[in-house]
Amino acid sequence: MSVIMSSPPIIPLLLSGGAGTRLWPLSRQTKPKQFLALGSDYSLFQDTLRRCTGRLFDHRPIVVCSAAHRFLVAKDLEALNLSADILLEPMARDSCAAMVAGALRAVTRHPDALVLTLAADHRIPDTAAFQAAVGAALADAEAGYFITFGVTPRHPATGYGYILPGPPLREGGSFKVESFREKPDQAKARAFLREGYLWNSGNFMFHAQTFLDEVKALAPAVLKAVQEAMEAAATDQGFIRLDAGSFERAPRISVDYAIMEKTARAAVYPVTYDWSDIGSWETVWGILPQDDRGNASEGRAVIIDGQNNLVHSEDQLTALVGVDDLIVVATRDAVLVSRKGQAEQIKPLVQTLKDQGYPEADADIEYYRPWGHSDLIDQGEGYKARRVSVAPGGVIALQKHQHRAEHWVGVAGEAEDTIKGLTRHIAVNQSLYVPAGAWHELANRGRTPLILIEIQTGSELAVEDVIRHP
Amino acid sequence: MSVIMSSPPIIPLLLSGGAGTRLWPLSRQTKPKQFLALGSDYSLFQDTLRRCTGRLFDHRPIVVCSAAHRFLVAKDLEALNLSADILLEPMARDSCAAMVAGALRAVTRHPDALVLTLAADHRIPDTAAFQAAVGAALADAEAGYFITFGVTPRHPATGYGYILPGPPLREGGSFKVESFREKPDQAKARAFLREGYLWNSGNFMFHAQTFLDEVKALAPAVLKAVQEAMEAAATDQGFIRLDAGSFERAPRISVDYAIMEKTARAAVYPVTYDWSDIGSWETVWGILPQDDRGNASEGRAVIIDGQNNLVHSEDQLTALVGVDDLIVVATRDAVLVSRKGQAEQIKPLVQTLKDQGYPEADADIEYYRPWGHSDLIDQGEGYKARRVSVAPGGVIALQKHQHRAEHWVGVAGEAEDTIKGLTRHIAVNQSLYVPAGAWHELANRGRTPLILIEIQTGSELAVEDVIRHP
Repeated sequence: MSVIMSSPPIIPLLLSGGAGTRLWPLSRQTKPKQFLALGSDYSLFQDTLRRCTGRLFDHRPIVVCSAAHRFLVAKDLEALNLSADILLEPMARDSCAAMVAGALRAVTRHPDALVLTLAADHRIPDTAAFQAAVGAALADAEAGYFITFGVTPRHPATGYGYILPGPPLREGGSFKVESFREKPDQAKARAFLREGYLWNSGNFMFHAQTFLDEVKALAPAVLKAVQEAMEAAATDQGFIRLDAGSFERAPRISVDYAIMEKTARAAVYPVTYDWSDIGSWETVWGILPQDDRGNASEGRAVIIDGQNNLVHSEDQLTALVGVDDLIVVATRDAVLVSRKGQAEQIKPLVQTLKDQGYPEADADIEYYRPWGHSDLIDQGEGYKARRVSVAPGGVIALQKHQHRAEHWVGVAGEAEDTIKGLTRHIAVNQSLYVPAGAWHELANRGRTPLILIEIQTGSELAVEDVIRHP
Repeated sequence: MSVIMSSPPIIPLLLSGGAGTRLWPLSRQTKPKQFLALGSDYSLFQDTLRRCTGRLFDHRPIVVCSAAHRFLVAKDLEALNLSADILLEPMARDSCAAMVAGALRAVTRHPDALVLTLAADHRIPDTAAFQAAVGAALADAEAGYFITFGVTPRHPATGYGYILPGPPLREGGSFKVESFREKPDQAKARAFLREGYLWNSGNFMFHAQTFLDEVKALAPAVLKAVQEAMEAAATDQGFIRLDAGSFERAPRISVDYAIMEKTARAAVYPVTYDWSDIGSWETVWGILPQDDRGNASEGRAVIIDGQNNLVHSEDQLTALVGVDDLIVVATRDAVLVSRKGQAEQIKPLVQTLKDQGYPEADADIEYYRPWGHSDLIDQGEGYKARRVSVAPGGVIALQKHQHRAEHWVGVAGEAEDTIKGLTRHIAVNQSLYVPAGAWHELANRGRTPLILIEIQTGSELAVEDVIRHP
């Protein structure tokens, strides 16, 4: 225990990089899996953060995410009353570059920082077991090993990579890695289980500077590009925006290929806790409570004469009659009906939808901003209607739209609105008009969310038609 | 041919009485099957009307429908530029009472009227064959027979009643009915096919006064109640509203039980045309065009690696992956996933949903009024948002709401609005406010539909909160 107490706290480094097609239509490019709440009151991102609280951990995590998801990240952090260093990737460059960015940030905070790198979209329900494993492997990370957490397999999964442990580093600690193995076929997976392989959970713990030194030796181009991107980074609304021109030059390579499979410092700490990357709707079915016929449902769902189904219904009433083993996911703008065992078909489906020009392939009807969020509720020729929710303290900063006018009607809460320099109050049952071209700013100075219905009219209604005041 | 030319024209009598649960969630109590367009640009009700045009038919049909559906009927007629006598039933009293009401109306128009009674929710794609059969059976109806159209069975259906033809009335005409048989089981249905039974399509042709005379003899209580209900009927916005107190006393009995199975005048004209009562989603699948894997779809649907599915998607993008033989129906507020062969489970499903208090069991998010229609697009604590479409010439007559205020924003077309006696113009990108308790009237005097987004706020938002000016 004295070892733990004398160490610098571990900085959680959350990698929020998933593209999020495998849980379509709930996950979209604009809202990947880590931001979904699946059988929990919290999103996977939030549950990952919640797993890293307590005396082992630095209270300020580092998050590396796509610039497109910054407001989702900010919202999820704020709801937990947490602050973080949020590093925005201008484009995806795989896990090695993301981890280097996080590690560089960590060493600026403490030259001897230890970092616990976590995928933001995994599920580990037993927090105590997780924290015990981190605590037990800590000394090995301090000794300069790059620790992976190897999960005892519960079935011959073909969707995960595997690790074979070698000799122990010490009594009760981690093991040298004998070998890393890619996702196997069914037969090979069964052999792996017999031979004592572990699932590679893709979560790592290491001494940040030691890791960076190893990247310098094994993947110098990654280090150089990310270092330059960090040096030229801009701070924007509290986010750290990596420089695009530099970051772009980082080779696209995973940390497994670039470092872990080459370094002599790879170690694995075996864990037996329940872990999943929730890589399919079938997995979601597995983690949700099931009725006595094996049906799991979220939202308003009625199942008659059917078994082993998963229903996730966001808004509609969804009824299943006389069907078994189905995955049914209904969102406001898209519905998926699939069969269990077809998980690998969802990714190509989304690609097909994209190729056929369906906007629902990528985009969600909801979007997140620093001030709150907005949902599309209706649209037609020449107009869009949105439900706009502005959080307490939220400010839609001074802006104007070239092509659209906006009518606002308050339906909950209140706010102050300044249009063309004139400040007015908007509350329930009050309306305001924002002509095209008019500078306007809206601030919710109350303690409850403001909700207004916004009706946009005009010849062009793109979300991008916003000119912000310099 | 001379017989046809000298006859009074046949008055089409459309019975629009279905409750419409079998095609849930597309059909609802508020919008039963006859008002749906299934594989056609027209609703079944409209296609039934369109089948009865030409020189055989009186140009003004009679429609007997539920008072609740009067605006749907009016809208569908208007879209075809047709006028009709619309008789509103205050409650359902089965087919004998409805047919008596229609026949009574017919004889006031012509004492020798012939009536062709048609279910408003059947499908007969071959109009020429249908009209040829009507023409061929006409002389038998004039001779005092009650003609049913007996369809040559294409398969041993268990969902239809059957008729056994007896001796012919004349060469090339109808046959005496040997016997009527109720819906059989599978074995009996197969026997019926071998024995020359026909499907009872539930459509009739008769001389109206002869029919009424027979009702007087065989079901006098029905005649008396309906006669009184017609005599005490009120005219309301062009609808004929049967008197509820009298109509209520009509025994609930079908015309088959009350008259056809007892009368000596029953005759059957055999037809070979394609006919269906579209009693299930499986039937809808059968009538829609199918791709080379047997999939039929309406709306935005994508099917990957699946066969023999039906997808009907109203609004959402609906994707099926790796599933076969499914019925998937997605509407804005409810989704059904069922398996073919489960048709008989849909009715109990709707009852279950009703018992569990789901409003989607009965009610649609759309409602119809003489001036146009309205769709619910969003709702929350203390507010509702609706898209309101007012047809050219449509007037929302002087009214007020006690508990709700309304904000209107024009998004298409234009109208004149009078609020508290003051008339203003509303057009695209203009808004109006209607305070609670304010008398207001809206008139679309233009040539294009007015569309406005209405945001209602208040403590009570029931559709029923309307006080109309006396």
